[in-house]
Amino acid sequence: MYKVTVIGGGTGSFSMLTGLRNYPDVDLAAIVTMTDDGGSSGILRDELGVLPPGDVRQCLVALADAKDLWRRLFAYRFSQGSLAGQNFGNLFISALEKITGSFENALDAAGEMLQVKGRVIPVTLDDVRLIAETTDGRTIRGEHQIDLKEAGIKRIYFEPEPSANPAAVRRILESDAVVIGPGDIYTSILPNILVQGIKTALRDTNGVKVYVCNIMTQRAHTHGLTVKGFVDLLERQVDSTLFDVVVYNEKMPNPSFLESYAREGEFPVKGEESEHKGSKVRYKGYDLLSEKVPQQVPGDKIMRALIRHDPLKAASAVYNICKEGK
Amino acid sequence: MYKVTVIGGGTGSFSMLTGLRNYPDVDLAAIVTMTDDGGSSGILRDELGVLPPGDVRQCLVALADAKDLWRRLFAYRFSQGSLAGQNFGNLFISALEKITGSFENALDAAGEMLQVKGRVIPVTLDDVRLIAETTDGRTIRGEHQIDLKEAGIKRIYFEPEPSANPAAVRRILESDAVVIGPGDIYTSILPNILVQGIKTALRDTNGVKVYVCNIMTQRAHTHGLTVKGFVDLLERQVDSTLFDVVVYNEKMPNPSFLESYAREGEFPVKGEESEHKGSKVRYKGYDLLSEKVPQQVPGDKIMRALIRHDPLKAASAVYNICKEGK
Repeated sequence: MYKVTVIGGGTGSFSMLTGLRNYPDVDLAAIVTMTDDGGSSGILRDELGVLPPGDVRQCLVALADAKDLWRRLFAYRFSQGSLAGQNFGNLFISALEKITGSFENALDAAGEMLQVKGRVIPVTLDDVRLIAETTDGRTIRGEHQIDLKEAGIKRIYFEPEPSANPAAVRRILESDAVVIGPGDIYTSILPNILVQGIKTALRDTNGVKVYVCNIMTQRAHTHGLTVKGFVDLLERQVDSTLFDVVVYNEKMPNPSFLESYAREGEFPVKGEESEHKGSKVRYKGYDLLSEKVPQQVPGDKIMRALIRHDPLKAASAVYNICKEGK
Repeated sequence: MYKVTVIGGGTGSFSMLTGLRNYPDVDLAAIVTMTDDGGSSGILRDELGVLPPGDVRQCLVALADAKDLWRRLFAYRFSQGSLAGQNFGNLFISALEKITGSFENALDAAGEMLQVKGRVIPVTLDDVRLIAETTDGRTIRGEHQIDLKEAGIKRIYFEPEPSANPAAVRRILESDAVVIGPGDIYTSILPNILVQGIKTALRDTNGVKVYVCNIMTQRAHTHGLTVKGFVDLLERQVDSTLFDVVVYNEKMPNPSFLESYAREGEFPVKGEESEHKGSKVRYKGYDLLSEKVPQQVPGDKIMRALIRHDPLKAASAVYNICKEGK
């Protein structure tokens, strides 16, 4: 069995886990950001004082072996009345956290109900908020506000400083491969790898460290970056070398999709071979594009839906790298 | 196996089912009122357009074989923020009704999760409201309003007229015993047995029909009634004879409890032996009182908590009557 650990949160991790779970010789775990404070998770944090369940819940559903009805229930979002926007799976985890008094126990119980194959590990069990310092000298408080992408970001940090979940540290140290991304740099990737104990574990693990780069840039946050630009940005923020291998998409998306992204100021991330030469990091370009026109999920931005990783293509690339090792 | 069917809703049925489930030779079902429109059920009906899950949910929990955590989760009530008062089990059933498009499918799925031994059958699957005509000539709309007990009731009826759930009719016809009550006359008992097909099935069944009378009268609704008074009231409303056996409590409750009930205008229901003589109905008095001082549940009225049926004593009385037959 290959021990593979996916680090991230939200849609990117969901996709990566959905692909990798098809490999019977992969023992999967997800380490998940805990700074969500928008939408359903934000309401539950503010009103009930629980930890944010949203990112963890998406990963649980990705790894669920239970019948389709339970998966649909966990992903169900109320659309009317005072419950509008609340996600059922989030309510499930938060009610269990209230009953058992522990987020971890709640995840175990939810995992049991969903017959999760693999593990979902919160990066921290502390109640922390994400703060950004912008390039124009302002401070933005909260992941949700940062995610609006209204300013360039100089750095992000936590308030208060979190302790790494020991289970996450252990898992990274014993992994054969650690897959970072895909996902938003400032709201999915860095909120994991900036946690002190995680940073150290990533340095110390013997597993191969793979970065799966985003397909598109994001307004303000990663505008104009190449694949190497993403890598440099992450390493600069973490202040160390991070990756053994970088996986990126090199197939051009559908031009009409590109047009609608361009109107939002978002463009394909290009792998410039000239930039990769001489690097100790192995850069590997693939066709990673999903050909499916995805089902519209209420509340989802159209753009995110149109251009995305194909879970099977991305997983296949990562799986082969795991087999090769460092 | 004795096929025993408990008709009612809410706390009374919960107690009866909790007691009867201890008999391994009893095949249990509950037929449950569907007119709740207050509290959590009321919000879900109004905002999501679903059927009211509350009474059904309580019966599911009473029959659940699943581990204690799932039972606690289903009974869990949020107490803060915009979710305050919402019951998790109700949200579970309503989300499933939305996903599957059917209240029955939702109950099956919830029953599976809770490993319910027995069946919970909604008396109707129609969206109906309960209406009361008061003794002073007014009309009160909705079970919740009626339950405030601010006026004597002349009669209750539905808007619109519901069809009986065929599964409920079948179950009554094939039962060895049908247990009606305990429960509020106008909001738990009559909203079941006034449904036309249920009325007919009760007349036609060969099962022994047992009425479990309330321990205390209720202000305005049943003030001053004896056990026979309760029976007469029900038979007058349904316009037919209903019962083979009537079970009632004859042990006096704790005087200090009685005092606090008296302040609310509620008094013990007395079995007057002189009234029972010559009746075709068999009246049977027992000690049915719970000795436990129950745990306070948030939102519960103190009074309801202090004087109540002991589930095991009530079940033992009913079980012995089932074995005797008519």
